[in-house]
Amino acid sequence: MIVVIKQNTEDKNLENLTDWFKSQGLGVHVSHGEYQTILGLIGDTHNVDIDLISGLDIVERVQRISEPYKNANRKFHDHDLVVDVSGARIGDGHFQVIAGPCSVESREQICGIAADVKKAGARLMRGGAFKPRTSPYSFQGLRDEGIELLLEAKRQTGMPIVTELMNVTHLPLFEEVDVIQIGARNMQNFELLKAVGELDKPVLLKRGLANTLEELLMSAEYIMAGGNEKVILCERGIRTFETSMRNTLDISAVPMLKRMTHLPVVIDPSHAAGMSWMVAPLSLAAAAVGADGLMIEVHNDPSHALCDGPQAILPEEFAEIMAKVEKILEVVGKRID
Amino acid sequence: MIVVIKQNTEDKNLENLTDWFKSQGLGVHVSHGEYQTILGLIGDTHNVDIDLISGLDIVERVQRISEPYKNANRKFHDHDLVVDVSGARIGDGHFQVIAGPCSVESREQICGIAADVKKAGARLMRGGAFKPRTSPYSFQGLRDEGIELLLEAKRQTGMPIVTELMNVTHLPLFEEVDVIQIGARNMQNFELLKAVGELDKPVLLKRGLANTLEELLMSAEYIMAGGNEKVILCERGIRTFETSMRNTLDISAVPMLKRMTHLPVVIDPSHAAGMSWMVAPLSLAAAAVGADGLMIEVHNDPSHALCDGPQAILPEEFAEIMAKVEKILEVVGKRID
Amino acid sequence: MIVVIKQNTEDKNLENLTDWFKSQGLGVHVSHGEYQTILGLIGDTHNVDIDLISGLDIVERVQRISEPYKNANRKFHDHDLVVDVSGARIGDGHFQVIAGPCSVESREQICGIAADVKKAGARLMRGGAFKPRTSPYSFQGLRDEGIELLLEAKRQTGMPIVTELMNVTHLPLFEEVDVIQIGARNMQNFELLKAVGELDKPVLLKRGLANTLEELLMSAEYIMAGGNEKVILCERGIRTFETSMRNTLDISAVPMLKRMTHLPVVIDPSHAAGMSWMVAPLSLAAAAVGADGLMIEVHNDPSHALCDGPQAILPEEFAEIMAKVEKILEVVGKRID
Amino acid sequence: MIVVIKQNTEDKNLENLTDWFKSQGLGVHVSHGEYQTILGLIGDTHNVDIDLISGLDIVERVQRISEPYKNANRKFHDHDLVVDVSGARIGDGHFQVIAGPCSVESREQICGIAADVKKAGARLMRGGAFKPRTSPYSFQGLRDEGIELLLEAKRQTGMPIVTELMNVTHLPLFEEVDVIQIGARNMQNFELLKAVGELDKPVLLKRGLANTLEELLMSAEYIMAGGNEKVILCERGIRTFETSMRNTLDISAVPMLKRMTHLPVVIDPSHAAGMSWMVAPLSLAAAAVGADGLMIEVHNDPSHALCDGPQAILPEEFAEIMAKVEKILEVVGKRID
Repeated sequence: MIVVIKQNTEDKNLENLTDWFKSQGLGVHVSHGEYQTILGLIGDTHNVDIDLISGLDIVERVQRISEPYKNANRKFHDHDLVVDVSGARIGDGHFQVIAGPCSVESREQICGIAADVKKAGARLMRGGAFKPRTSPYSFQGLRDEGIELLLEAKRQTGMPIVTELMNVTHLPLFEEVDVIQIGARNMQNFELLKAVGELDKPVLLKRGLANTLEELLMSAEYIMAGGNEKVILCERGIRTFETSMRNTLDISAVPMLKRMTHLPVVIDPSHAAGMSWMVAPLSLAAAAVGADGLMIEVHNDPSHALCDGPQAILPEEFAEIMAKVEKILEVVGKRID
Repeated sequence: MIVVIKQNTEDKNLENLTDWFKSQGLGVHVSHGEYQTILGLIGDTHNVDIDLISGLDIVERVQRISEPYKNANRKFHDHDLVVDVSGARIGDGHFQVIAGPCSVESREQICGIAADVKKAGARLMRGGAFKPRTSPYSFQGLRDEGIELLLEAKRQTGMPIVTELMNVTHLPLFEEVDVIQIGARNMQNFELLKAVGELDKPVLLKRGLANTLEELLMSAEYIMAGGNEKVILCERGIRTFETSMRNTLDISAVPMLKRMTHLPVVIDPSHAAGMSWMVAPLSLAAAAVGADGLMIEVHNDPSHALCDGPQAILPEEFAEIMAKVEKILEVVGKRID
Repeated sequence: MIVVIKQNTEDKNLENLTDWFKSQGLGVHVSHGEYQTILGLIGDTHNVDIDLISGLDIVERVQRISEPYKNANRKFHDHDLVVDVSGARIGDGHFQVIAGPCSVESREQICGIAADVKKAGARLMRGGAFKPRTSPYSFQGLRDEGIELLLEAKRQTGMPIVTELMNVTHLPLFEEVDVIQIGARNMQNFELLKAVGELDKPVLLKRGLANTLEELLMSAEYIMAGGNEKVILCERGIRTFETSMRNTLDISAVPMLKRMTHLPVVIDPSHAAGMSWMVAPLSLAAAAVGADGLMIEVHNDPSHALCDGPQAILPEEFAEIMAKVEKILEVVGKRID
Repeated sequence: MIVVIKQNTEDKNLENLTDWFKSQGLGVHVSHGEYQTILGLIGDTHNVDIDLISGLDIVERVQRISEPYKNANRKFHDHDLVVDVSGARIGDGHFQVIAGPCSVESREQICGIAADVKKAGARLMRGGAFKPRTSPYSFQGLRDEGIELLLEAKRQTGMPIVTELMNVTHLPLFEEVDVIQIGARNMQNFELLKAVGELDKPVLLKRGLANTLEELLMSAEYIMAGGNEKVILCERGIRTFETSMRNTLDISAVPMLKRMTHLPVVIDPSHAAGMSWMVAPLSLAAAAVGADGLMIEVHNDPSHALCDGPQAILPEEFAEIMAKVEKILEVVGKRID
């Protein structure tokens, strides 16, 4: 951590500050320049409160050199994390596809789609029971009943399920859910993060619409600091100035996150662009760029889906994508197993 | 609402769609162009699910012409809303300043600052008890105890209090709180919005870091659809590519929101830039541009504030700002009363 | 084009406007709603000045339904354009890799790299002679001499060259250049676009840092309106809030542009992230997503490159990427030929 | 400047690098941490090529501590710069309003508006002769003839003129122009910046749509490095995710630029939002926040303006704004003189 000291600071004040840093167990190197003095802090600075230091009278600016996250930091983990979801492994060369409808709508719908995507090679099933919707007038999900239907599809197909949690008071309903999804709009709902940090269950953490990768890892850190290390990161498109697409898929996030952390990273091409015809090319790009998995919306009747119809694909299109994804995984040395 | 139909759509399918719209009570005007056919829907389209329509096979694109919000829509409200907080009125020419520390730290701190800002002309007091922090290692607020201290400051000074709610399970603690704040990171925490929509208490709704004004109004709509019409909007800076400041204050949001809605709009200059020396000029700009109030962080010892120290100002600086703000309010025809 | 008329507009004024549209050869459909009246304009609206209409007293808002570009519009071109650069074809299944150093530095450097990348499968060579640099204190390119050295490398290797034009007064130097590059910062330098629109030479048009795809096509339209239809589009990363990378590669731009236009699209993975270790994964993603080519910075000594060293790769790394790219092209049905 | 060295770097290589920095006249402080070694460079680093250093094998990352601009840097200039345009002073307490139409259209139009805005208190006149337009099908300005008409209005009214230069080959036409404007889209047209850097004439430099304040100052640095120190900066709105307005006015840019540089800063409220009804509130905000001037589009017939009609105001509205701006200038201690 670098602390830039204001011009004309009195020596005594500077000395007090360096003494204080030393009392916190940090080493301090002082460099006097013509226009500013700079302190270099050496040691474990990840829990130094940068805001507190910035607020001091004699401080002009503070810059981090090392990362503010620790549990999620690649530097302290030699190997890629493998998250095992009831036998389906994600990470370190193991690739998985999570597929299913945006919303659970009926027993026939969810069980039918689950069977279809399983046949095409998906090993995890998704489906929304609690739905975050921009408008209070849009369909809000089947809620409790949706969870029930997902569990029935799980019993029928044997596929583990991934579904979104929006409220800590709903947690009791999620006991048999295999992976809890934290949605993009809740990525910084810190109360929710703390709650899932206390569980012993994989969490799929989606990047917020306008959150940096460092913030994504700080949210993972919230979960991991609670003791739950099974975090799967998900890139699903960010908000930019571009208006022709709903969001801009940040494909570079995959290699960058691989440098920053040992956690697995999956891509959601369905939400990224918000258009079904773009799911295929973006899925291939995700496999090629080094992602550990995909999360794809599949619906047997997209035209009548109760939400996000425009971005869902048909089971037969999904099967075609799977075939190509597998060929690309061969090129990059990964496998679905 | 405009529905653009794909080229080469069969007449029969188009007819089915127009019939369906008519069955929903909407008027439909059909325009045939060389490269596309366009349907214009006439009537109350605010609860037509745009995603559902976009997903239809024969639809190329859907564009809204009228707004998707209704309760918050200026068109249906001739007069500016005045929110009365225990006698302090906000809106329609009435300007209020909400001041206090980022975090409640101790009895002396919160009561001392409350007395100071009251003397300088603030009529509402702010202070965080539950704090949303990016890092799990940063100070998270005094929580229950913080609320207690705020209520004591209220008893001592008679000032109504504004404080943030992060979790629906904390609601019982907020009974004597005068204004519930929904923070930027929770602007689309729809479960929280629904919960405060059922209260009879003013809500200060902060715009999310990367949310459009339309989305801000859709979140207000969530609260208002529940029956609670006392919503105060707050612009606090948005995320852009600029790196010299924490956020970019969207000052134009004030006149734009005034066109879109009848709800009062306040500006938070402290969070907008994240630097105490910028609070003064941004406060004057906010008063000049037509805001209905300000929300300012004031601390008696910013260098030792437990959070957000760099952006808090001293009580004496606050008093100077208040004096200039009042002069600018005269120019634009508003008053603090 | 949809024109939303203000409430309470007098019938006479509305009539005058519709008559005027009709006199311009446009059909007009009028829809009267409770809160607004909407005009739908039918016909060729691509040269209606949207700003002029928006400025009229009685107009609330104007929305385009059809695209403002015509020469670059997919709707008017059934087949993908193939640009032939001295025998190397780009587009419609033909994939090309343009490789070379950021800046031309010396005869040995440019001729050496040209030979290396040719051997690895590149058929076009790049190299900057005139360099746009943020700082006036950074190396500005060898300028005239750089062009000379590029032409010598072309003579030695037979590879066509791609290099950037920054100033219309430099055009005489570019006579033997095969493809003129318009850089991101000049994407809306309309004087430059007009100048290259009068040439009979392929133009590689890079997307600006913060320009929409529609604006990119409007800039292509400037070139094509001048008579030069040989435009190759290039996505090279956009500016977002993310700070861990220089730019955010907008990979979805490729499938989206393929829908909007018949022009070929290449990706520049070197500038996108600004880091050499990210060139490989992004190149594979570009091939998988459906791009028509790549533009890659290769340097025989990246540590001592006079500009953009951090993003250049070594010839041996380039050869490895080429091998994997070819395997991915097989999966998506393209070829380098 | 901070140079972060990669883990496991050999001592010999590190020594070579520090020796090289010393040979460049820089002091070097080395700090060894557990996970990284950091070099602090002391001295004049503004012309160290950060890209060159980042590209070295042993370097992980480089961070600037001091600014890369020098001529434009506040640190080296105790007093605010005052730019004198034929007697109208801008900067250091002197406020000026530049007003006139977007485009010059006719003798009557430009001379009439000039007289009107002069009467209302503007001391500089603007008008576009060469117009940068997104579409090749939009009106491109009267060009040479437009410059002639501006000069005639100058002769009639005595007001100095501000007009945009888009092409170095047009410079001879600009001899009698008082202030040369560099438009937002040309902010990084470095060839144009170099050309005006050689003149002895004030330059009004507009911030690019997606350029940081540091980049704006680097472009000012291009002009000043050529010897022309009379640079006036102009904030005119930036591109963000918000769609209800054309651009987002970055009002905080004014106080931030005042910290970074001694150059005067004006605000263009007309382009910022692109809507005439927003010019008044944004002008007042600009005066309140500490800007040194305004640049406002005024047209005697906005509905028939040949470009940007929607954002121009009438002379009578302009006069009303001027009256209020003057009252706000009193509050902040500035004057139009």
